[in-house]
Amino acid sequence: MLIVQKFGGTSVGSAERIKAVARRCLATQRQGHRVAVIVSAMSGETNRLLALAREISPEPNERELDVIASTGEQVTVGLLALAIQAEGGNAISLLGHQVRILTDSAFARARIREVDVHAITDAFAQDRIVVIAGFQGVNKGGNITTLGRGGSDTSAVAVAAALKADVCEIYTDVDGVYTADPNVVPSARKIARISYEEMLELASLGAKVLQIRSVEFGMKYGVPIHVRSSFNDNEGTWVVPEDKAMESVVVSGVTETRAEAKITMVGISDAAGIQARVFRPLAEAGIVVDVIVQASSSEGHTDLTFTLPKGDLKRARDLLAKHCGDICPADRIRSEENLSKVSVVGVGMRSHAGVALKMFEILARENIRIQLISTSEIKISCVIDTKYSELAVRALHDGFELGTVRA
Amino acid sequence: MLIVQKFGGTSVGSAERIKAVARRCLATQRQGHRVAVIVSAMSGETNRLLALAREISPEPNERELDVIASTGEQVTVGLLALAIQAEGGNAISLLGHQVRILTDSAFARARIREVDVHAITDAFAQDRIVVIAGFQGVNKGGNITTLGRGGSDTSAVAVAAALKADVCEIYTDVDGVYTADPNVVPSARKIARISYEEMLELASLGAKVLQIRSVEFGMKYGVPIHVRSSFNDNEGTWVVPEDKAMESVVVSGVTETRAEAKITMVGISDAAGIQARVFRPLAEAGIVVDVIVQASSSEGHTDLTFTLPKGDLKRARDLLAKHCGDICPADRIRSEENLSKVSVVGVGMRSHAGVALKMFEILARENIRIQLISTSEIKISCVIDTKYSELAVRALHDGFELGTVRA
Repeated sequence: MLIVQKFGGTSVGSAERIKAVARRCLATQRQGHRVAVIVSAMSGETNRLLALAREISPEPNERELDVIASTGEQVTVGLLALAIQAEGGNAISLLGHQVRILTDSAFARARIREVDVHAITDAFAQDRIVVIAGFQGVNKGGNITTLGRGGSDTSAVAVAAALKADVCEIYTDVDGVYTADPNVVPSARKIARISYEEMLELASLGAKVLQIRSVEFGMKYGVPIHVRSSFNDNEGTWVVPEDKAMESVVVSGVTETRAEAKITMVGISDAAGIQARVFRPLAEAGIVVDVIVQASSSEGHTDLTFTLPKGDLKRARDLLAKHCGDICPADRIRSEENLSKVSVVGVGMRSHAGVALKMFEILARENIRIQLISTSEIKISCVIDTKYSELAVRALHDGFELGTVRA
Repeated sequence: MLIVQKFGGTSVGSAERIKAVARRCLATQRQGHRVAVIVSAMSGETNRLLALAREISPEPNERELDVIASTGEQVTVGLLALAIQAEGGNAISLLGHQVRILTDSAFARARIREVDVHAITDAFAQDRIVVIAGFQGVNKGGNITTLGRGGSDTSAVAVAAALKADVCEIYTDVDGVYTADPNVVPSARKIARISYEEMLELASLGAKVLQIRSVEFGMKYGVPIHVRSSFNDNEGTWVVPEDKAMESVVVSGVTETRAEAKITMVGISDAAGIQARVFRPLAEAGIVVDVIVQASSSEGHTDLTFTLPKGDLKRARDLLAKHCGDICPADRIRSEENLSKVSVVGVGMRSHAGVALKMFEILARENIRIQLISTSEIKISCVIDTKYSELAVRALHDGFELGTVRA
């Protein structure tokens, strides 16, 4: 088989950890597989480099920031190649521009356009383990780019896609993807198989173990992703194309995001273009709005409600006061902090009626007031007071019987 | 003018120092010059990286070592470009493979073959200061190489040669090249102009401020090198082609190297090939032999004497005992430690008779015994007891009137 393995910053955080990774790569190769390894910077290193840059310049140019930040992974690939050699293996490191991983020119958040596999397959032909720098690429002008935080996951899946690898293994410090956060729900269970679509919706669980863009990439190219622990050999969670068996499971997991805030603009005009006028200044300020709900209009007036990160609330209120005073005077802008969004996710929802009703009933049974509701094809989210959110997650996990072993 | 500036590790050792370098580059550009800057890694960084590599592997592969070590300069170019931008300037960083600086494939000690100037001149056309990573290059397979310790000087002179720069300025923490070590000789004087040949011979003075290979490069391509302080705007030392005026100065400087040892093999056979048999095991063990003197043979026997670093003496004696017992039994191998080599250097020697005699007379006047003599066209070296070496340097400096301002 052709196996791509990816190790994050904590897995390569010290010389000892790097040696452990080397032994794992070698063990895989000795089972008869071809192995390409993608690694991140040693934990803490990227932050150290960015802090250096900020010491020089408060608003550093992103091209130069990428030149600096990409050195973290460059050091790790060299060290891991040395560690594999020290264990008697044959390895070579390749940087983004050596592979080459061609990206667009959006420095600091580049997107991969193409992965040239020749250097990798040449190295395979010499029985080498190929150690590839994650997070980095090169644009067509030869400038170094980086893919944004967590980009090494995307590097790994993109390399796996280009190589038509049998599997892309993402090694992390947890065992896999769980039905809920095990710290909140003791009965949370590791999910054995999950579809790409569900994984995308489980973002708030998955973000800890898998960058969202890597899942999109996996879905687009059909790369089986295996999220597993770098501390043991247990099977983790397979992220794969949806299949029939998955549909029988109505809900795959329960997620929760905290530190949300809510703004309601009461009784604003229902004229065309109002929403754009409200959200343009927020978008330009880089404020990410999540759930948007607009109550049905009566006599040309409506209420517009949306959620946003709590930390952005004051800035958002100031921007609205400055730019939208004519649409909605300050005394009709209401806001609330300390909210959480709890969601249930599952591809089975598409073919099972009454999932939303069941969610509302479970929350009602606990006397939890639902402030906002938003749904997608495979997800239902409710915004509630944060003080109830752990209770809500546990109640939903029990109510949908997620602790029970899945078929 | 087109000016290449090179700043070493201590000159870019902190954010504050990097900002100071940025201001100097900008000041030069604002005088109407085109500026390319070559920088080293921040002081201590290369050692930190190599220590990391050794923690992983006691004998690290040199290709991977270069991948790791080259990140030091990569961070500095990014930071300096940011610093220039923060001061309102226009700058772009270029790595070895981006310039590109093509080298041979001798990892860790690569030699520059060719510098492509297109990326640099393109950036000049956009009024940019070009910040180039020193110490690193790329071989024709696209692998990263490094030039060996102090290689950034060579990078700077090579870039200056390729650009046909008007001057290559080497910024350092001293004012220039001195007639002797000012710590030993208080009356030592900064040399205003010196020829490449003299600079090469003044290695032990020059090594502190200028890598020898960079001088060879400068000589080969006729690049004027200006060694000067990064702390002030004073004129430093110009290293330039020899001219008529220089010949009138008989001696340019006095140098001293300590921690030498001497081995004498007494009464060995004068047969052909004996020297090769003696020096082959030493060379294979990486022991660098300096001065070699063979007394004239009498009746087929001769004495062979050579100097080597004191730290290699024991190893050398063991090797000779093992490999050359038939040529010279152990009881006829004499050795001595705690020796110094003092030298006077000057292109004027070629046209002035009696310089050697004057040197011997000065040493004799101080009752200093000369143990070995070696001469080149523009240098005379005497090996003496280390306890007299400071006295010797001072006496020679005075005797040749080096404290007097040069024409």
